[in-house]
Amino acid sequence: MHLLPHIGALPAGQRNAITDVAGVSVGHHTLAEGGVQTGVTVVRPHGGDPYRDRVPAAAVVLNGFGKSVGLVQVEELGVLETPIALTNTYCVAAVAAAQIRQCIAAHPESGRSLPTVNPLVFECNDGYLNDIQRMAVTGEHYLRAFEGARRQVEEGSIGAGRGMSCFGLQGGIGTASRRVPAQGAAEYTVGVLVLANFGRLPNLVVAGHAIGARLARQLAIASEPPQPEQGSIIMLVASDAPLDARQLRRLALRAGAGLARTGSVFGHGSGDIALAFSTAYTVPLEPDRPMPALALLHDSRVDPLFQACADACEQAILNALWRATPLTGRDGHHRPALSDLLAGWSSLSQP
Amino acid sequence: MHLLPHIGALPAGQRNAITDVAGVSVGHHTLAEGGVQTGVTVVRPHGGDPYRDRVPAAAVVLNGFGKSVGLVQVEELGVLETPIALTNTYCVAAVAAAQIRQCIAAHPESGRSLPTVNPLVFECNDGYLNDIQRMAVTGEHYLRAFEGARRQVEEGSIGAGRGMSCFGLQGGIGTASRRVPAQGAAEYTVGVLVLANFGRLPNLVVAGHAIGARLARQLAIASEPPQPEQGSIIMLVASDAPLDARQLRRLALRAGAGLARTGSVFGHGSGDIALAFSTAYTVPLEPDRPMPALALLHDSRVDPLFQACADACEQAILNALWRATPLTGRDGHHRPALSDLLAGWSSLSQP
Amino acid sequence: MHLLPHIGALPAGQRNAITDVAGVSVGHHTLAEGGVQTGVTVVRPHGGDPYRDRVPAAAVVLNGFGKSVGLVQVEELGVLETPIALTNTYCVAAVAAAQIRQCIAAHPESGRSLPTVNPLVFECNDGYLNDIQRMAVTGEHYLRAFEGARRQVEEGSIGAGRGMSCFGLQGGIGTASRRVPAQGAAEYTVGVLVLANFGRLPNLVVAGHAIGARLARQLAIASEPPQPEQGSIIMLVASDAPLDARQLRRLALRAGAGLARTGSVFGHGSGDIALAFSTAYTVPLEPDRPMPALALLHDSRVDPLFQACADACEQAILNALWRATPLTGRDGHHRPALSDLLAGWSSLSQP
Amino acid sequence: MHLLPHIGALPAGQRNAITDVAGVSVGHHTLAEGGVQTGVTVVRPHGGDPYRDRVPAAAVVLNGFGKSVGLVQVEELGVLETPIALTNTYCVAAVAAAQIRQCIAAHPESGRSLPTVNPLVFECNDGYLNDIQRMAVTGEHYLRAFEGARRQVEEGSIGAGRGMSCFGLQGGIGTASRRVPAQGAAEYTVGVLVLANFGRLPNLVVAGHAIGARLARQLAIASEPPQPEQGSIIMLVASDAPLDARQLRRLALRAGAGLARTGSVFGHGSGDIALAFSTAYTVPLEPDRPMPALALLHDSRVDPLFQACADACEQAILNALWRATPLTGRDGHHRPALSDLLAGWSSLSQP
Repeated sequence: MHLLPHIGALPAGQRNAITDVAGVSVGHHTLAEGGVQTGVTVVRPHGGDPYRDRVPAAAVVLNGFGKSVGLVQVEELGVLETPIALTNTYCVAAVAAAQIRQCIAAHPESGRSLPTVNPLVFECNDGYLNDIQRMAVTGEHYLRAFEGARRQVEEGSIGAGRGMSCFGLQGGIGTASRRVPAQGAAEYTVGVLVLANFGRLPNLVVAGHAIGARLARQLAIASEPPQPEQGSIIMLVASDAPLDARQLRRLALRAGAGLARTGSVFGHGSGDIALAFSTAYTVPLEPDRPMPALALLHDSRVDPLFQACADACEQAILNALWRATPLTGRDGHHRPALSDLLAGWSSLSQP
Repeated sequence: MHLLPHIGALPAGQRNAITDVAGVSVGHHTLAEGGVQTGVTVVRPHGGDPYRDRVPAAAVVLNGFGKSVGLVQVEELGVLETPIALTNTYCVAAVAAAQIRQCIAAHPESGRSLPTVNPLVFECNDGYLNDIQRMAVTGEHYLRAFEGARRQVEEGSIGAGRGMSCFGLQGGIGTASRRVPAQGAAEYTVGVLVLANFGRLPNLVVAGHAIGARLARQLAIASEPPQPEQGSIIMLVASDAPLDARQLRRLALRAGAGLARTGSVFGHGSGDIALAFSTAYTVPLEPDRPMPALALLHDSRVDPLFQACADACEQAILNALWRATPLTGRDGHHRPALSDLLAGWSSLSQP
Repeated sequence: MHLLPHIGALPAGQRNAITDVAGVSVGHHTLAEGGVQTGVTVVRPHGGDPYRDRVPAAAVVLNGFGKSVGLVQVEELGVLETPIALTNTYCVAAVAAAQIRQCIAAHPESGRSLPTVNPLVFECNDGYLNDIQRMAVTGEHYLRAFEGARRQVEEGSIGAGRGMSCFGLQGGIGTASRRVPAQGAAEYTVGVLVLANFGRLPNLVVAGHAIGARLARQLAIASEPPQPEQGSIIMLVASDAPLDARQLRRLALRAGAGLARTGSVFGHGSGDIALAFSTAYTVPLEPDRPMPALALLHDSRVDPLFQACADACEQAILNALWRATPLTGRDGHHRPALSDLLAGWSSLSQP
Repeated sequence: MHLLPHIGALPAGQRNAITDVAGVSVGHHTLAEGGVQTGVTVVRPHGGDPYRDRVPAAAVVLNGFGKSVGLVQVEELGVLETPIALTNTYCVAAVAAAQIRQCIAAHPESGRSLPTVNPLVFECNDGYLNDIQRMAVTGEHYLRAFEGARRQVEEGSIGAGRGMSCFGLQGGIGTASRRVPAQGAAEYTVGVLVLANFGRLPNLVVAGHAIGARLARQLAIASEPPQPEQGSIIMLVASDAPLDARQLRRLALRAGAGLARTGSVFGHGSGDIALAFSTAYTVPLEPDRPMPALALLHDSRVDPLFQACADACEQAILNALWRATPLTGRDGHHRPALSDLLAGWSSLSQP
C-alpha cells in the first residue's frame, strides 16, 4: 500500500476526502450476504434540507450508457434538491422513491402547492459480484445511509461500492481532495468521490505507470477472451468556490481528464457521468426568500480548480482500488484486491 | 364538439392516431377512486420485444422541469429498448422497476451477460386532481396497460391522462396523425400521442382562435390570482419514415411548434419533452445479428414530416381537451371539460 | 396597415423596439444598387466596449442550417464581447474580420497579452434578391452600421434585412418589445429584433389568422411548385432583467414559440437561431476588476419574461413584414410587400 | 528522438498518419518571415468534392474558448461539405471566405438554387510567436495548401502549426494512426491529426512520464510566474469504419482521453475541439441521387475504435512536439524544441 502515489502537485485537504469541502457528509449502507453484495451511498451537500435550500450543480455525461435519474432537471435549473444517492442499476427506482417519500414527509405540500421533488440517483452495474436481479436495495437502506452520513468517509467495498468491479479487480468507493492556493483572498477546496466500476485490467494505469498488462500476466488472465465492458463510473465533485451551473459543468468535465489518466477511454458500455456542486451558496425554494447576491469566481481563475478536479478524481479512483478488499459474490464470482496483487512489488515502474 | 377543427392541410391517417403508424399500439390502465385519479399509459413501438429489437429514437427537452427517466441512454445510443410508459411524477419509479422486472422475466441474463435494460418512463404532475403522494400506480398496473395495448386508442381522462389538467381544464391523453404525400416512391405517416397537463386558461388558443380569455370570463375565474403553473406535456412522435437518431431529434423538436400554437410558451414549471421514434427498422441487441442496411430519408425531404409533426401535435393536444370529461378528484378539486364549455358556442371566432 | 394587431396581453415599451431595453442601440448600413440588395445591421448591447465589459448571453439553435460565427465561445463562457452583427451568409467572414480589427484598434494587446476577441455575426441567405456571390458587404460597411447605432430603430428592407424574403414576400428587420409587470420591486422589459428571411407563403399565420393560402391565391402562385426553403431567421432578445447565461438560454428558446405561431415549423433549410442577452450587469474582462454581485431573478418568476419574449418575437416578425417595401433585385427577382397585398382587405379573418 | 515511445498496444498504419485512412490527404502552406510565423493546413476527407459528396462528421467541444466556424451546421446535419482548414485565430475569416469562393467557382448555383456552402475552419492562437494582428493568411494561401494536399504528411512547425506553442515549447502539426483488428470481416483504421498549441510546461506528461517539471528546471523557468494559458488544440479524427454522426461524436470525444494523458485538463483559455469523420460513405447533395444504404458498425463494437482514437491522439500530440524545430518569431519570442531538450536524456523515467 506504500506504493500508492499522491497525484499532482496540489496538496490534499485534511481528510483527502470530498468532505474536506465544509458541510459535505457521506453515508453508506452495505448489503453483504451470499449473492447479495451491494448497497447505497449518500452524499449530502450540506447539513440542511436541499429541497428548501437548493445547491448549484451541473452534470456532464461522458458516456451515457447509464440509468441515472434526475439529470434532466439539474440541467434545466442548475440546482440539485435532494441528497445525492448512489446504488446499483436495478435499484435506482427504489432509492428514487425513497427520496420522494423523504421529501413528502418533510414537506407535506410537495407535489401539491409546492413543486414535485426531483430525485437524484446515480448507478453502476454490479451484476458480476451482486445478484442484481434481486433488486435488494430498499428505501429503508437509503434512509440508513442518509442517517449515517458523516465527514469521515469509508472507502472501498462499501455502500454502493460493495459489489463493484474496476479494471477486473475489486472496485468501489474512493475519495480525495485538493486545495487550491489562494488567488487574491480565498483558498478553495475541491473534493471528489467516485463509484468506480469500469475498465479492463490490461488498460490500468497507476500514476502514469501502465501496470495493467503486468497485472494481467500475474493473474494469468491475459489469454482469456476479454469480457465486454459493462462498467461505469460516477464522479461527484464538490467545491466551496463560488461557481454557477455553467462553471460547475466546466468543472465536472475535468473529472474526465483524471479518469482518462487511469486508462479509461470512456468505453461504449460504461455510464461515465460527473456531477459538480458548489457549497458556496444555496438557492431558495420559495421566490419570496432573497436570492443570493455573491460575486462568482472570474472564469479566468478556474484553471487551478480544473487541475484540482482532475487530480482528485484520478486519486479517488486509485484510492477506491487501494482500499478495496477481495470479494467473492454471486455464483462464486471473485474479484481480487489491487493491494494484494501489489504486495510483492518493489515499485510501480518495474517492467 | 363539431367546432373541433382539423389542423393544417395534411390529411389524417385512418384512425387519426399514433397507431396509424403500422405496428404501434397503445394501452391504458386507469385508477379512479376518490382522491386517486391517475393511471399509466403504454406505447409499444412494435409488436416484438424492443430489448432485442431496438427502436431508433431521440428526445428533445424543451423545458426540463421534469423527472422522466431513460433519456441519458436514449441520447447516447439513439435507441429505445422498452415500451414507452407514461404516468404521474411520483410513480415513475414504480413503473421503471416494472419495466426492469419485465425485461428480466423475458431475458434472464439481463444485467448479467446481457446489458442492463434502460427503463423509459415519462411523467406529468397530476397532483391537483390526484392524491399524488399516495404513489398509487404499481408495477401490476403497468403490466395491465402493456397487455391492453391495441391499435384503437382511447383519449381523454384515461390511463396516465386520468388526473391531468390542461389550461385549467380537464386534460389527458390525445392523439392524431398526418399522412405525408409521396416524394418519389413512399408515403409516410407521422403520429403523435400527448399527455397534456400544461397551460393557463387565459393563454389557450384553438386553431388560431385565442379563446382562453373568453373561457376564463365564462368560468368567472379571470379575477383570481393565477396559480403557478406546475404542468407538463409529454409528446410522443412515431413515424414509419426511415430516419436515424439525429433526424428523429430534429423531428421531435417540431412537436414544440405545434405546442406553441396552442398558447404554450414552455413555462418554467413545465416538463415539456418530445420523443420521436421510427418504425422503419430496428437495431439488434446482439452484435452478431446483421445491422440494418437501409437508405435513410435525405435531409432535404424532411420538411413535410416536420409539418406533419407540428400539425399532429397541435391536433393531439386539442383532441385531449375535446375528449376529456369533467372530473372531481382529490379534496373536491374539479376540472371542467372544454367540450361542455363550448356547448353553447356557435363558432370559435366569436369574440 | 391598420390591420396589424398587437400580439398578446402585455403592453409594448415606448418604442415597441429592442431599444426599449435601456442601453441597447441599433444601426444599419444598406447596399441597394441593381443586383446588390443587402447590408449589415449592428445591435450594440450597451454604449461601452463589450470586449472589456462583457454581456451575459446565451443562444439556442432551433435549426442549425446556418453559418453564424461566435456561438461556440458564447456557449462556453456565457458572455458576448462584441456588438452583434447581422448580414448575409457569404459576408459573415468580412464582418467578423471587421470586428477583429475594431477590437485590435481599441485594444492593441488583443490576441497577445489579452485574449483574442470572439466575433459574433449572424446571417441569413438573401440570395433570391441579392447577388450574394458578389460578397458585397465590407468591413467599412460594418463600421458605418456600428457608428450609426441609435435608439430609434428603422425596420423593413434595410440593413441586413435589405434583400431578405419572408413567406415569399419582402422580409427584413422587425423589432418589438413587451413590458413585464412588476413582481415585487421591479418592472422588466424584453425586446426582440429579428432578421426575418424564412417561410413559405401558404403557411403564413398573422395573429392566429392563417391567411397564407388566401394570399397565395391572390398572387396566383398556388399552382407553382414550391421552391425549397432556404431561409433563416435570427432572433435577438434583450432584457434588463438580471439573468445569467443558463436563464438567458431558457429565455432565448421562447422566441421559438413566437416564431412557431407565425407558421414556421423550423424548416430543414432554415438557420433558426435565437440569442438572448441581459443588460442588468456586465462581466469584466480583467480578473482583477470586481465581479458583479447581484441577485438573479428567481427561476419561478421567469414566466412573464418567457411570455414577453414569445409575444415580442411574433410581433417583431409581423412588423418586419408590415414595414417591408416591395423590392426588385438580382435578375429581376421580385418580392411584394404584405402591406400592399392587404390594402384591400377589410379584416384578417375574412376567408 | 529515439525516446519517443509508441503509445498503446494497437499497431500504427503504414505512415502512422491520418492519411492511412484511404482517401484522406493533407496540405500545408507556411508563412515564415520575421514576425509572421503562421500558415494554413488543409485536410481533404476524400479526393472528390465534399460539397456534392458530403462526409459524415461530428464534433465535440471539450472547451469552447475558440473561434472555429462551421460547427453549428455540422451538428445539425451530421456532415461536412468543405475541406477542413486549420489556421490562426484571426485568419479564420479569410480562410472561410476562400472556401466560399472555391465552392462558388465550382458550383455557380451555390447560394442560389443550391444551398449556401458551410465553411469549416478551426483555429489556434499563435500570437506568442506570430504577429497575429497582421492577419497574414489570405485566401490564396488556403488554395495553395489545398492544392498541395497529399498522403505524405509533414509534421511540426509547418502550415497552421508554424507559430504554435505547446507546453511552452514549439508546437504545431502532429499526426498518427492506429489499426483496429478485424471483428468479423473488416479491419479499420483510425487516424488523427492535431494542431497542438496548448499546455503549460510543468504539466507535460510523455507516455506516462511526468517530465514537465524536470524540463522546466532544465530551462530554469520554474521560478517565473506562469503565463495565462491562451492555447488550444484541434483534433481531427478520420476513420474508414462505417459510422454515423452520432457514433462519430462518440469517437471524437475519445480524442479528449488521449489529450488528457499528455497533461491537459482542458484549460479555461483553451479551445479544445475534436472533429471526427468517416470515409466509409458519403451523403449526396442532391436528394434525387441515391442515399447510401450500408450497415453501420454495431455500437457494441466501437471500443477498439475508441482506444485507437485516444492512443492516436496522444501519439499525434507527442509527434507534434517531437517533429517541431526551435523557432524565434515576433518580437524575439522564442520556443525551444522538445527533441533538443531531450538530447542529453538517457530515459524518460529518470527523475
